[in-house]
Amino acid sequence: MFNKLCIIGPGLIGGSIARAARQRDLCNEIVGYGRPEDVRNLIKGKELKVIDDFYSDIAPAVAEANLVVIATPVGSIDFIFEMLKPIWNNETIYTDVGSTKANVINAAKRVFGKLPENFIPAHPIAGAEQSGIEASLADLFVNKRLIITPEEDTNSELLQKVTLFWERLGAQVSIMSSEHHDAVFAATSHLPHVLAFALVNMLGRKDEKTEIFKYAASGFKDFTRIASSDPTMWLDICLANKDEIIPLIEQLQDELNNIQKSLKNDNKQQLLDTFNYARQSRQRFLDLFEN
Amino acid sequence: MFNKLCIIGPGLIGGSIARAARQRDLCNEIVGYGRPEDVRNLIKGKELKVIDDFYSDIAPAVAEANLVVIATPVGSIDFIFEMLKPIWNNETIYTDVGSTKANVINAAKRVFGKLPENFIPAHPIAGAEQSGIEASLADLFVNKRLIITPEEDTNSELLQKVTLFWERLGAQVSIMSSEHHDAVFAATSHLPHVLAFALVNMLGRKDEKTEIFKYAASGFKDFTRIASSDPTMWLDICLANKDEIIPLIEQLQDELNNIQKSLKNDNKQQLLDTFNYARQSRQRFLDLFEN
Repeated sequence: MFNKLCIIGPGLIGGSIARAARQRDLCNEIVGYGRPEDVRNLIKGKELKVIDDFYSDIAPAVAEANLVVIATPVGSIDFIFEMLKPIWNNETIYTDVGSTKANVINAAKRVFGKLPENFIPAHPIAGAEQSGIEASLADLFVNKRLIITPEEDTNSELLQKVTLFWERLGAQVSIMSSEHHDAVFAATSHLPHVLAFALVNMLGRKDEKTEIFKYAASGFKDFTRIASSDPTMWLDICLANKDEIIPLIEQLQDELNNIQKSLKNDNKQQLLDTFNYARQSRQRFLDLFEN
Repeated sequence: MFNKLCIIGPGLIGGSIARAARQRDLCNEIVGYGRPEDVRNLIKGKELKVIDDFYSDIAPAVAEANLVVIATPVGSIDFIFEMLKPIWNNETIYTDVGSTKANVINAAKRVFGKLPENFIPAHPIAGAEQSGIEASLADLFVNKRLIITPEEDTNSELLQKVTLFWERLGAQVSIMSSEHHDAVFAATSHLPHVLAFALVNMLGRKDEKTEIFKYAASGFKDFTRIASSDPTMWLDICLANKDEIIPLIEQLQDELNNIQKSLKNDNKQQLLDTFNYARQSRQRFLDLFEN
C-alpha cells in the first residue's frame, strides 16, 4: 500500500501502527523519528523489529516516505509542524493520532497559513495502561473506532487512502467535524479523566491522614482506573481541549449541586429519578458498546 | 455454631449468608422473613434450598432463632426494629449488614432507648451487580472485609461470636467506630457512586440530542460501572449517610474549581501535580488492594 512509512514518535500508538502495518503487509519499510532523549525507546523498537530504522534528525526520517504518521503527544504538535514545514512534501500523505482535533488543525493553520490538503487529521479510539513502543500491539486497533476530521481543504483522494489504511489495520472509520469530535470526547473521555484525577487527588490526601483506601473495594478500583493514566499525556489533552472541558465541568458542578440540594432536603423522588435515569442511560451505552 | 439462623430480607447478601453458613455447616436450620410482596423471592429461595422455610409474619420467623441477620435495605431499619421490639429476645444474637452504620445504631437507640447489647452492627464489603436470592453465592464473602462497629453497650462475648461467624464465612473482620466507618465509606464508596450517577445522568441527556455514547470506550465503561447500581438501594445509603456525603461533595467541588482555574490559566505545573499525585495515590490503593 505504501513503500515507506515514517512514524514520528513511535510509542504505544505509533508502535502499534507499525506492528499492524507490517503484519498486514501494508508497507515495505518502517522508520521512526524521535528526539535524542527518546533514543532508548527507538533502539528498543529496532531491536523488537517494530521499526527497521530510526532517526533523531527529521529530514532523513521523512525522506521519500509515502505516509508520515505524527504520533507524539498533542501538546507537541506545533513544534512538529514547524519542524516539518521546510521539508513538507506534497507527494507524501501526513496524518496524526491526536486525541484532540481542533487544536491540531489550528496548529497546522498557524504554521502553514492553511490546512495542507495532504494532512489528514485522525484519532484512533484505542490505548492501553502501559506506554512506550515495548507495549505496542499489532491488534490494538482491531474493531476499535477511528475518527477522521477533514476540513474543506482536505484532499478527498488522500482521505480515502488513509481511511482504507486504517480499515486494513482493523479499525471502524467514522468521519465527523473536529468541533463535534472534540465535544464528544470532552464528554465521554476528557471529563471522566478530570473527574477521576480530581477524586483520587482529594481522597489520596485523606488516605495519608486516615487509611481509607484499605477498605475500598472493586467498585472503587474500576471507577478510578483512568486516574492511573499518563499525567503528561492528559495534561496536553486537557489544555488542548479546555474550551470544551471547562463548560462540562460547570455542568457537572450544577448536577452535583442538585444532588446536594436533594440530599439536604431529603428529596427522595428527585434523587431516585436521577439515579434511575443514570442507570438507564448507562444501559443504553452498554447496548451500543457490546454490539 | 447456631441451631436456627433467621435472615430478615434474604436477597443477594442475606441469601449468600445462608448459602455460606449451610455450606460451612454453621447452623441446622435457616429461615427467611420477607414482606408479602416479596413472596416470589422467598419461594425461589426455598426452591433453591437456600432457606429451609420462610414467613411473612415476624414472630414465627425469629422464634428460637440463635442468630437473626437483618439484611434489608438500610432505609427500612427503623421499621424492622419497631417490628422486632415487642418480641425482642435477650437470648438471641441480632446483627445487620447495612452499608451505613450510624443511622442503624441511631435507629436502634430511638426504638429501644439504648443500643441493645445483643445487637451487633456489621457491614460486609461485598456485593454483585445482580440482586435477589437467585444471585446469592456461597463464596461472596471469601477474602472480603467485614466491619463491625460496636458501641459501649455492645456485649463483647456476642461480638466475639459474630466475629467468628463471619470469619468462618471467609471474611476478614475489622472493628471500628460507626463514625469512622461512615466517613471512610462516604469517601471511597458513596461519593464515587454519587459522582457516577451525576456524570451519567448529565451525559445521558446529551446522548439523547447527539450520540456521544457511540464513541465512548472501555475507560468510560469502567468509570461508569457503579452508575448501574441499584438506584433504590443507593437512595437509602445516600440519605442515611448524607451528613458525611454532603461535605465530601463540597470538597470535590473545590477540587474541580481548582482544576477549572488551572485550565483557564494554563497552569501546567498545578495540573501536572494534581494528575501525578492522583496517579501515585491510586497506585498506593492498588498495592493495598492486590495484597
